[in-house]
Amino acid sequence: MSTSVADQFTVAATAGGATAPKGFTAAGLHCGIKVKTGALDLGILAADTAVPAAGIFTTNLAQAAPITVSKRHFETNQGLVRAIVVNSGCANACTGTVGMSDAGQMAAEAAAQLGCLAEQVLVASTGVIGVNLKMDKLVPGIRAAAAALGREHGSILARAIMTTDPFPKEHAVTVKTARGTFTVGGTAKGSGMIEPNMATMLGFLATDAKVSSAVLQRALRESAADTFNAITVDGDGSTNDCVFAMASGASGVEIDDELYPALLAGFYQVSRELAVGIVRGGEGATKLVTVKITNAKTHEDAWLAVRTVCNSPLVKTAIHGGDPNWGRLVAAAGRSGAAFEIGQTSVSIGPYKVFAKGAPHDELAPKAADELMKKEMTIVIDLGFADGNHATMWTCDFSAEYVKINAEYRT
Amino acid sequence: MSTSVADQFTVAATAGGATAPKGFTAAGLHCGIKVKTGALDLGILAADTAVPAAGIFTTNLAQAAPITVSKRHFETNQGLVRAIVVNSGCANACTGTVGMSDAGQMAAEAAAQLGCLAEQVLVASTGVIGVNLKMDKLVPGIRAAAAALGREHGSILARAIMTTDPFPKEHAVTVKTARGTFTVGGTAKGSGMIEPNMATMLGFLATDAKVSSAVLQRALRESAADTFNAITVDGDGSTNDCVFAMASGASGVEIDDELYPALLAGFYQVSRELAVGIVRGGEGATKLVTVKITNAKTHEDAWLAVRTVCNSPLVKTAIHGGDPNWGRLVAAAGRSGAAFEIGQTSVSIGPYKVFAKGAPHDELAPKAADELMKKEMTIVIDLGFADGNHATMWTCDFSAEYVKINAEYRT
Repeated sequence: MSTSVADQFTVAATAGGATAPKGFTAAGLHCGIKVKTGALDLGILAADTAVPAAGIFTTNLAQAAPITVSKRHFETNQGLVRAIVVNSGCANACTGTVGMSDAGQMAAEAAAQLGCLAEQVLVASTGVIGVNLKMDKLVPGIRAAAAALGREHGSILARAIMTTDPFPKEHAVTVKTARGTFTVGGTAKGSGMIEPNMATMLGFLATDAKVSSAVLQRALRESAADTFNAITVDGDGSTNDCVFAMASGASGVEIDDELYPALLAGFYQVSRELAVGIVRGGEGATKLVTVKITNAKTHEDAWLAVRTVCNSPLVKTAIHGGDPNWGRLVAAAGRSGAAFEIGQTSVSIGPYKVFAKGAPHDELAPKAADELMKKEMTIVIDLGFADGNHATMWTCDFSAEYVKINAEYRT
Repeated sequence: MSTSVADQFTVAATAGGATAPKGFTAAGLHCGIKVKTGALDLGILAADTAVPAAGIFTTNLAQAAPITVSKRHFETNQGLVRAIVVNSGCANACTGTVGMSDAGQMAAEAAAQLGCLAEQVLVASTGVIGVNLKMDKLVPGIRAAAAALGREHGSILARAIMTTDPFPKEHAVTVKTARGTFTVGGTAKGSGMIEPNMATMLGFLATDAKVSSAVLQRALRESAADTFNAITVDGDGSTNDCVFAMASGASGVEIDDELYPALLAGFYQVSRELAVGIVRGGEGATKLVTVKITNAKTHEDAWLAVRTVCNSPLVKTAIHGGDPNWGRLVAAAGRSGAAFEIGQTSVSIGPYKVFAKGAPHDELAPKAADELMKKEMTIVIDLGFADGNHATMWTCDFSAEYVKINAEYRT
């Protein structure tokens, strides 16, 4: 983010989530997909009219039917979207032509209820792969949800999209500018299969800034690069992930080039909070770890190294055990593909530099171990190329609970 | 491997390991590195004279001192090696100039005892990273080991190189050819940090075939590509891994172009047995899984896909739980970077095709679940490009025990 315009606007947290901005309503209910638990499994986020929208999608080539359908809708809706309809408990992935038809019907049913075109509805699903949607439950559910839309239901939507998430995730900020105040809010779900490039994660952002769909797309892409695409739980990218954004314009604050940094700051702040929340609520996670690579030889090297470190099972289990095993951090960076010279590499765990330009400082190990016992910590690996290329990602520890959750998820 | 010459030789398992071929002796003892357990921690594999040798090394740029020293020795020893000296319990990695000096001294001490040049000794270490070798224990240990060398001590060497390995690994075969019989034998250790490109793994192969170091290097490289480099436990490549080979020539069977396939077959057979043994003994592993990708668009695609599937925590935990969650297999292949079309993709768990050209066959799920409860199983993902490009890797399941071992390894 640019700091040169920082004095021209202020960003402050506010209450609520996706419906904090003006011009949006939401609903969430149990329609009958999550049979065993009876938990909420269907939600809608709607704008009052069709509004400029944007979307980013999983890079997994095994993309689920709702991904394909939503992408197609963007091809014909001129960037105007009325609503997002989403279910949890069933991913509608690997479900062939039936799945495509079901995803299309979800959109069509919501459109019929809201009085808009089917392509003005985006679709998202999350849950078990390879199982067909129960359309006999979903269609009446969509009708009931459309009838229940209200601005006060943002937090119900946040709960309706959860799968193994231990807590709902929503956040909102107000952005004060010289030309007025607008709001950005959103909700997300994550938990397992979280990895950069839209691993199993859904995120829905809304703003009442007045902005074209092209500029909205840019703000979404740029803010996601350092937030939703900079988190990992287990390195497993998924079939269903997407982040959508809608802009109602209801604040009357028009985003031009001058105000773009303010929009981006609002998007970044909300996305970062949601993304970090996803890691904090990662499957079996007990700790939130911020990993920074500094002074890589290239920008790409910084990302290669930070991603390899954040996904290393040996690193993640060491953190789980509170073990200041910097050797695993060094080994992960060394195998990442990034330029690497051990004699110029340093590792800090919290404020403790346990490895300085190739030399261990094991006298700091007890303090570093204390640091690792905290719920949140920062690890910095300085690759020593002094070119200033850096990257930050958020990851969590790897616990026996993760194994338990994922060995038993489906059966 | 070529089959056209298959009738010209036969490969049969035989007793023993690295000293099964004629012309080699071994020793193993406890010198004082593994203080807590008192387990064997030092070994030597020696040829009766300096003989042709070969080596392949970790691709991790954070390479340990013994890797650097052994590479340097190969630069000046004209491919002739008298012995390998190896310790377990301390990796001598990330130990700076002291570590380099210690690794050099290990070789020099062994050379002094055996009466050869220091560069005719290769060095290997495995264990904790970032801790210096106890040279006051190691030097007397090397003297004692050199004095204890015997052909009958191959299996003691196999135990001396273990770290968290649950069992020692050794294997040997005799290769009968029209021009005589030779033997290939070897030992390996693995357990954690196992991944292609020499993750934390040591392998020592010996043969009494008569072969130049250049041809030996070729046989080692070619056989390792489909064996040592086709296994994974946790995707974490290490700082210390290497596979060495020595050829005594004592069988009198000279390897020329005609007999090269026989040498390769012997190397492949021993390397495969050792590599699969490493996976079977992976940290916390309860199952051995053979994963095959068939009909990828390119050879590289086949390897991309098989590696991604074999390293997916979600796949590995599903297998641990006996969950026929083919969706995770499809999702892993889809995000691997390999060309992928879901409608032409099929997945088999054992003989059960649970996903056929994009369509689920969940009626087979109970049988597939039974298959996954076995100790050993094969999973085939057919990417449907019909070009015949395939790749096979061996992996293991991901258990809570893995987390326990690695959260507590160092402290």
